[in-house]
Amino acid sequence: MNFNGKSSKLLEDAIAQFSTLPGIGKKTATRFALHLLRKPEIDVETFASAILKMKQETLFCEICNNISDASICKVCSDNSRDKTLICVVEGIHDILAIESTSQYNGLFHVLGGVISPMDGIGPSDLNITSLIERVRKGGINEIVLALPTTMEGDTTNFYINRKIEAFEVNVTILARGVAIGDELQYTDEITLGQSILNRKPFIKR
Amino acid sequence: MNFNGKSSKLLEDAIAQFSTLPGIGKKTATRFALHLLRKPEIDVETFASAILKMKQETLFCEICNNISDASICKVCSDNSRDKTLICVVEGIHDILAIESTSQYNGLFHVLGGVISPMDGIGPSDLNITSLIERVRKGGINEIVLALPTTMEGDTTNFYINRKIEAFEVNVTILARGVAIGDELQYTDEITLGQSILNRKPFIKR
Repeated sequence: MNFNGKSSKLLEDAIAQFSTLPGIGKKTATRFALHLLRKPEIDVETFASAILKMKQETLFCEICNNISDASICKVCSDNSRDKTLICVVEGIHDILAIESTSQYNGLFHVLGGVISPMDGIGPSDLNITSLIERVRKGGINEIVLALPTTMEGDTTNFYINRKIEAFEVNVTILARGVAIGDELQYTDEITLGQSILNRKPFIKR
Repeated sequence: MNFNGKSSKLLEDAIAQFSTLPGIGKKTATRFALHLLRKPEIDVETFASAILKMKQETLFCEICNNISDASICKVCSDNSRDKTLICVVEGIHDILAIESTSQYNGLFHVLGGVISPMDGIGPSDLNITSLIERVRKGGINEIVLALPTTMEGDTTNFYINRKIEAFEVNVTILARGVAIGDELQYTDEITLGQSILNRKPFIKR
């Protein structure tokens, strides 16, 4: 919508800010702004302060670079977790996704991206040195590579593997195959091919 | 996603707040929060303060209840607008929509809702008295009813019409018909029926 300057400058500012969110156009941004305008002032204060506090007060874990309220994150400081296992991920969103499965009980390491020469991102721009340092210190049995299944993710997988193959540590990668709920006819041929090559016994004996 | 308390409390608070926006689930809210987390602190401060200022500092126009930065809104204080014409709308979002068409040059009157006995909203809950007062003062030639095309909108149209039929003022309603770009086969029969009954000369002579 075009406001032609006939509306409130303050409303327009709020709409402009909401429009900066990923996937949000001016129409949805307007809906958000008007929604908050109808709410009690205390609710809007809570809304604004929660966002500001998140940015100002969250830290990044000194060990794994996960988001944290303290210098060591909840995962790294949790003694019930398997400290011999490190899952390497691109970003914090991947930790949230893996944690939501409840299938992983090891530690994490956030790279902060993947190697991408096209975007000018080299190994030195990522938290790879600190990962190698963790492996060098010993006590790690397995590194699970959970990077994106893209060319850049694969490049990063190979780079990390080469850097740590000198150490006595298993390097594994997430299984790739047909997603649950997917129909075979709509699965791309590379994924389907991999799922045939990596087929496994139907019932484990 | 389920965080199992393994993430940051501050991040979770921000996600919870974004989830209160209309049509936003936890997944999109997480995307918004992580997006802002990656931005410079100054940007996030601007984001939060724009929203808070909108709520704290915007006023509602004393004449038409439109959102405003002053006691009289930009539309009511604009001398280039036709002051003999009042368009009655449900909410501020309707003013934004009508203004974006650039086809209307009169004033507005925001009711703040429509009569809806099911939701316990009666005429006294809406800004109808102030509308009648504006008409009684004189100088108004036409009232354009631009309320929702629902049962509640129609009820409100009839109520307002009855209240102001004693005054010398034309009451009009927005044209209803086939929307531009719509195909006839998918247009509902009531709209299509109305568009036939209200057909008009193809070329005005």
